[in-house]
Amino acid sequence: MTERQRALGVHRVLEPAGVLPQAAWRLDTSPDLHPDEVRISVQRLNLDAASFRQLSEEHGGDGDAVRAAVAGIVATRGKMHNPVTGSGGMLIGVVDAVGDDSPLGLEVGQPVATLVSLTLTPLELTDGLARWDGRSEQVPTAGHAVLFARSLAAVLPEDLPQETALALLDVCGAPAATERVVASSGRRPSVAVLGAAGKSGCLSLAAARDARAGHLMGVVRTEQEAAALRAAGLADDVVVADATDPLAVAEAVGRPVDVTVVCVDAAGAEHGAVLATADGGTVVFFSMATSFSAAALGAEGMAADVTMLIGNGYTPGHAALALDLYRTTPGVRALIDPRVHRS
Amino acid sequence: MTERQRALGVHRVLEPAGVLPQAAWRLDTSPDLHPDEVRISVQRLNLDAASFRQLSEEHGGDGDAVRAAVAGIVATRGKMHNPVTGSGGMLIGVVDAVGDDSPLGLEVGQPVATLVSLTLTPLELTDGLARWDGRSEQVPTAGHAVLFARSLAAVLPEDLPQETALALLDVCGAPAATERVVASSGRRPSVAVLGAAGKSGCLSLAAARDARAGHLMGVVRTEQEAAALRAAGLADDVVVADATDPLAVAEAVGRPVDVTVVCVDAAGAEHGAVLATADGGTVVFFSMATSFSAAALGAEGMAADVTMLIGNGYTPGHAALALDLYRTTPGVRALIDPRVHRS
Repeated sequence: MTERQRALGVHRVLEPAGVLPQAAWRLDTSPDLHPDEVRISVQRLNLDAASFRQLSEEHGGDGDAVRAAVAGIVATRGKMHNPVTGSGGMLIGVVDAVGDDSPLGLEVGQPVATLVSLTLTPLELTDGLARWDGRSEQVPTAGHAVLFARSLAAVLPEDLPQETALALLDVCGAPAATERVVASSGRRPSVAVLGAAGKSGCLSLAAARDARAGHLMGVVRTEQEAAALRAAGLADDVVVADATDPLAVAEAVGRPVDVTVVCVDAAGAEHGAVLATADGGTVVFFSMATSFSAAALGAEGMAADVTMLIGNGYTPGHAALALDLYRTTPGVRALIDPRVHRS
Repeated sequence: MTERQRALGVHRVLEPAGVLPQAAWRLDTSPDLHPDEVRISVQRLNLDAASFRQLSEEHGGDGDAVRAAVAGIVATRGKMHNPVTGSGGMLIGVVDAVGDDSPLGLEVGQPVATLVSLTLTPLELTDGLARWDGRSEQVPTAGHAVLFARSLAAVLPEDLPQETALALLDVCGAPAATERVVASSGRRPSVAVLGAAGKSGCLSLAAARDARAGHLMGVVRTEQEAAALRAAGLADDVVVADATDPLAVAEAVGRPVDVTVVCVDAAGAEHGAVLATADGGTVVFFSMATSFSAAALGAEGMAADVTMLIGNGYTPGHAALALDLYRTTPGVRALIDPRVHRS
């Protein structure tokens, strides 16, 4: 075991041997720490939207069945890693123990959110999810989790409720990547965000504005979402289209844009995003429901000269950017607060 | 039906209604053409490597079973669209009929290769694949296929054998995208190609050199491939590692590179590619076996600040570039010719 391997958590992989924790079927959740690890006392999970949606649909919206499914996944795999969607989520808790060699700079007692996926975080729950009704992505619970040397965690800000911070940090990769793509385009690109009324969507709109985007369009699924997004004032135009209907998206967007950001959590948004994007433009896929082959072959099949990015959940400064956008943008708060309080 | 929808082939979708041909379960293969379509008399299919590999493995290498599976897919779906891998391949044939309004500039009698995926190309076979042994990606056959207004096809060059041209055009997206990424980096980036001894891999190495890359590394799976790649002289360094073993890839590559190009056709290469890439660098995924969520969550989980591109099969000029690299680079010919002649 090299130091690099340990930093990535390879020593916690039980099967199959020799892979990284995210690729593993099962992780070792032992509370005994290696010197470069940190143990978190878990308070709440925030399930990835695509994963929660899949579980809800699989169990016909039966909260008890969804709860049993999540508890079963964690017990079986030693991590919350939905085997169907391949996604997980994140968690918040309190720092419980810090190994002498941990480079994360955390201190015992600090409230933190993990910024690495639950799909690679050793997790053991002790309450059988008894306080969760299985009907929302935010899961109050108890247990412990382990961070590796190369994991990421953010100390929770004192000025925001925990649930709000968690909701923001969960999707902070999207606005950070959007800002980078817009800022690096060397002009003021037009931007369309699919799923613009959701958490990552509205933050991405705000980030695009912050990065001096040109015309900003929000694409949402319902008139109700459109009304909320218009009231929030984050986009120059708001249109309604089913993101999984490529032709409807293309019609709604009209003249193709320079940058399309996909923040919907449903499968099948790839072709609409490509059709909405001008030749030479960029699509940033942030939905975990994105199909690699549908995107690659769809763009080829439409002879679309677009750059397609796999949304990387990590961009330096991503946590601070999302929190700042929330603090400084009333429209973002107006859209996100009801989602947080509902759960 | 709008003109735009027809140009994309929506009128050929039988089920589910209203989606684009690539997303469809079943296409209409009628030989009667709409005015903007072109009909091709098919001579040969070139199956996507990931698809052929999956079918071979599913059927334990039994050529007859693989042949029956491919014939069954085409008969059922009206296109060669592997339902497991989501990928297809391409075909060559002769232009059989050209609608009056076709914008593709083709003429009856021209030998052509389609540059859009078989996953969206209406295809009907008439010979039951009787001349194919089910043991290679190149499938001699007969039947007809249909091109839409927004499809792409290349007239086959007279100076190259058909099989060679098909093999090159099948993977021409990879070198074109590699050239663009390297050329647009604004410096001479170091480049590693995973699967460097394969068709798309060796062309990507040549394209990177052509675009003035810095240090070029080829990563291959076996010593035999390493010897062939060293003899071809396309890379400054050749190392052996299993691309699906992230830690082995990281060890073999050593100091992370600026650009990593993934050309292996096996699943599980995402994490090795991310680990091989320096912060601020770029990974171009050209393998159809790439998992979107494994790439996105893996990069996040390793706190890797890398840009990840979904390899777009279409970049303007891609066909001409691949053919030219083959013509002008002895090392490319040395690696590709045996693969073509073997089949």
